[in-house]
Amino acid sequence: MHMKNRIFEKRIKQVRQILAEKNFDAAILAVGANISYLSGFTGEDSWLVVTGRGLCLITDSRYTLQAKKQCPNCKIYERKVSMVQATAFVLNKLAKIKTVCVEDRMDVRLFNNLKKKLIHPLKPISNLVESLRQIKERTEIAAISKAAKIAQTALAKTLHQIRFGITEQQLAGILEFELKKFGAAASFETIVAFGSNSAMPHYRPANRRLKKVDTILIDFGAKLNGYCCDLTRCFAVGRVNELYRKVYRTVFAAQAAAIKAVKSGQSPKAIDDAAKKIIKSAKLPVFGHGTGHGLGLDVHELPAVSAVSKDLLQTGNVITMEPAVYLPNKFGIRIEDDMLITEKGCRVLTSSLKNDDVPLLKVK
Amino acid sequence: MHMKNRIFEKRIKQVRQILAEKNFDAAILAVGANISYLSGFTGEDSWLVVTGRGLCLITDSRYTLQAKKQCPNCKIYERKVSMVQATAFVLNKLAKIKTVCVEDRMDVRLFNNLKKKLIHPLKPISNLVESLRQIKERTEIAAISKAAKIAQTALAKTLHQIRFGITEQQLAGILEFELKKFGAAASFETIVAFGSNSAMPHYRPANRRLKKVDTILIDFGAKLNGYCCDLTRCFAVGRVNELYRKVYRTVFAAQAAAIKAVKSGQSPKAIDDAAKKIIKSAKLPVFGHGTGHGLGLDVHELPAVSAVSKDLLQTGNVITMEPAVYLPNKFGIRIEDDMLITEKGCRVLTSSLKNDDVPLLKVK
Repeated sequence: MHMKNRIFEKRIKQVRQILAEKNFDAAILAVGANISYLSGFTGEDSWLVVTGRGLCLITDSRYTLQAKKQCPNCKIYERKVSMVQATAFVLNKLAKIKTVCVEDRMDVRLFNNLKKKLIHPLKPISNLVESLRQIKERTEIAAISKAAKIAQTALAKTLHQIRFGITEQQLAGILEFELKKFGAAASFETIVAFGSNSAMPHYRPANRRLKKVDTILIDFGAKLNGYCCDLTRCFAVGRVNELYRKVYRTVFAAQAAAIKAVKSGQSPKAIDDAAKKIIKSAKLPVFGHGTGHGLGLDVHELPAVSAVSKDLLQTGNVITMEPAVYLPNKFGIRIEDDMLITEKGCRVLTSSLKNDDVPLLKVK
Repeated sequence: MHMKNRIFEKRIKQVRQILAEKNFDAAILAVGANISYLSGFTGEDSWLVVTGRGLCLITDSRYTLQAKKQCPNCKIYERKVSMVQATAFVLNKLAKIKTVCVEDRMDVRLFNNLKKKLIHPLKPISNLVESLRQIKERTEIAAISKAAKIAQTALAKTLHQIRFGITEQQLAGILEFELKKFGAAASFETIVAFGSNSAMPHYRPANRRLKKVDTILIDFGAKLNGYCCDLTRCFAVGRVNELYRKVYRTVFAAQAAAIKAVKSGQSPKAIDDAAKKIIKSAKLPVFGHGTGHGLGLDVHELPAVSAVSKDLLQTGNVITMEPAVYLPNKFGIRIEDDMLITEKGCRVLTSSLKNDDVPLLKVK
């Protein structure tokens, strides 16, 4: 507990420094993951007010007991009125506050209501906490690595339970159950897509049954102690079709090229280009999404790894790398792994159950 | 498919009527459940533009194939630029558009960006679609009822699998797996709380193990074809403590009183009062949350059933009723069921596995 508090104090200090540089006396945080990052609170429907010396979590009776246990560093304010009224009440009575900012991920309705109730001018601010969160601390890297290990073990256990005739939904259910057995949750709604369904990048599992000769795409993640991992694996069942093999090898090579291009100081565009170049030279259609994204408390966070992203990669970023090829009405192949950016390259946190040739599943 | 399209057309017509009354030529919808309600699209990161005659879903390559299958009534626009740029491009070229509104649940950052790019004035609008969604159609009631049946069957199957020493997380995992076997997902992160953990209304399951004499609170729901249910059950294990029995009976009576007060035209406050009066007369602490909430595509939606809610209940609302008593460091008891509001009262959609006396579990 003691060490945890020091981590939160360090982070709050960084936030206060940014606020001082931007001439804000107070910040209102409304995004759950940011509040959790600064206070340890894991509940919902609560806001955090940061001032030069104060730290106040505004919550309601559902969370008071939990907040007191989780956030010894915060003053806990149990509201009886609306969140906007309570926050205005807390801030309006502070004599030294003149300028207040609020996270611009707050919705317009609340922002406008808050503006009316506050006696101070209110400005939106971008990425106040997100910019800090993209550089992971040692304990955070350990947490993501642990989630990644559990995810891979759970997937391995799930593969043994696949039978002909199983539905996509049933397979997703088994995988999420295996995650739960390790005390983890799914970091997002598991994607299991058989055959041509895998050509839809964000498909949701349905009642399609596994055939004797088929293909499987699984995109999933584990969330443990708040931290997420995110990986995608593709398998052939029964036998391997030659087109599928060609595409698999191409995507594998594209990912390898992208991983090779990764290091601190690199531009996301260079990585995106490295992956897409391989796919283009194989005369296959280039995927429309970014090659990767940051992950941590959220499964999608900074930095973005795409052609339009301008921020250079930094040591301590944890990102995914997920090149893909989608052939509508045929199949899609995506291979996705998580890695920590280092000075000279990266440390890959997920690497099991893939290969430079198509993994062929033996199914009963 | 044909019938589905007629439902979407009817809903879109209602939206256009509201827009005409409020003098808006176009609306931008950014909330997933609202877009799904009007178009059938179930993907993410997509916006819907509604004009007097047009309907355009703005999405990206991850969802294009899926959108074409799910939304035959919509024009599908695959964006290559940011969502804001693409939406401004689509709207700015429409000659007859002069006034545009956007859902006020959009975040401030996007709202401000959009305002800069649009040549038309942009106004936030509240509950444009949410106000329609609170009156459920026949097919929606059937969908919620089906989710409710699955949830109850899954819970019954889960109770048989409870063993001494099981953790809260493992039990939550079994329950969610049972839901998946029926093709359903959890409508929110399942709450399983043993003993004193149940005194925290929104507790998250952890590693606490079930003792020979213990109590269990389970708050969960099934989501099927987009529609949610939400129920809470409490059980004693081994034997029943007298205080626990007293509190259970009180909460049961409070819920019965609230259900008796429910009918079309009733004020939420009267229902809230009916439940809280029973708890007060038993000299137990009154719960701080509302007595209930609407549910449908979201697990929390309109109408709110709380002391501060002003809108009267209407025929076709589907709401939960969840009075509770929380005794910090001892236990909490909450009983929650779902019901459809009718002219004369309500039809309860969930009723199994509760009783006017504490349900006692036989655990091996």
